[in-house]
Amino acid sequence: MSSSVYLDQLIEALQVQPGIGPRSAARIAYALLDRRRAEGLQLAAVLKDALQHIELCPCCRNYSDGGECAICRNVKRRSSGLLCVVETPADVQAVESAGTYFGRYFVLHGHLSPIDGIGAAELGLDKLAEILASGEITELILATNPTVEGEATASYIAALARKQQVKLSKIASGVPFGGNLESVDEQTLAASLEQRRPFA
Amino acid sequence: MSSSVYLDQLIEALQVQPGIGPRSAARIAYALLDRRRAEGLQLAAVLKDALQHIELCPCCRNYSDGGECAICRNVKRRSSGLLCVVETPADVQAVESAGTYFGRYFVLHGHLSPIDGIGAAELGLDKLAEILASGEITELILATNPTVEGEATASYIAALARKQQVKLSKIASGVPFGGNLESVDEQTLAASLEQRRPFA
Repeated sequence: MSSSVYLDQLIEALQVQPGIGPRSAARIAYALLDRRRAEGLQLAAVLKDALQHIELCPCCRNYSDGGECAICRNVKRRSSGLLCVVETPADVQAVESAGTYFGRYFVLHGHLSPIDGIGAAELGLDKLAEILASGEITELILATNPTVEGEATASYIAALARKQQVKLSKIASGVPFGGNLESVDEQTLAASLEQRRPFA
Repeated sequence: MSSSVYLDQLIEALQVQPGIGPRSAARIAYALLDRRRAEGLQLAAVLKDALQHIELCPCCRNYSDGGECAICRNVKRRSSGLLCVVETPADVQAVESAGTYFGRYFVLHGHLSPIDGIGAAELGLDKLAEILASGEITELILATNPTVEGEATASYIAALARKQQVKLSKIASGVPFGGNLESVDEQTLAASLEQRRPFA
């Protein structure tokens, strides 16, 4: 028996978040009620605002506050001529965290998957073809995930770029920093050997 | 650089939840935006409602939807004469999950801690004394945590109950089910031996 219907509903609703089960949800609910009501109300307001206002940037399909996103509006990035194709907005965040890329992005929101009905239209590839045809892009960087689906999607996009004679590149696969050879899978190690570079 | 200010604010606000750091918050934000906007808006509404409406039951200090909580209003529980004193609303939920207790509760919201300025008044012990004086209670069950502070708080409350000549009991300490003796700490094992029961 529970003492509060609101509390039951809150514990239920919190579980919409991935990785939050009934126990974590209860812990969160009690913590907010006990000590963080103001911050919790702030979360409710921010969550509502974000979900109501965030839409897809008409230019790169990344999340934006309405209209073109901050990255697409950036003149320096626009003039770089670089376009990096990624599968998800989280991938954009990951590349941004690396802090060395200063071009634009194109977000597919997935990869080609005919079984699930996800084709070129669903990934916005008509829009991508348009951008490539505009002549603004000097190099297209393929940064889809190194999975079967990601590679297939990259090949498809490469064909689009070749049609417009845009220079193509693909991010390197290899042994991650801080990793050790022993624990890296065979395919990665094979790629790492094949893509070896001259060492001065 | 981020593409959306709303998204940054959302990732920040989600971290008010205990156990949610920047990475989990980003994963949750993207999941809600990508696939669960309706459920996310539902969460925002439920969270706001809960934090605005949940208050402390004037009778047991557990969370309630306003006025006496559902447990205190329950006539059967009221007439049982049992009162179980616990430290937190989460403890009530834990006892309820066990499914064998059908009395009322009193929630302290903490334990005596003079260093932190938490005394009898902060734990609502004047209210508890009032309940004990009312003659409604035939047995007071001490279920504070088996920690130094919890035990001290239990002793203090026991003195209140003795003044009103209310029967006192304390939940058993011992080896948990599914545990094994080897991995149980010495103090628990000592308590378990001391509190041994006749075995037919």
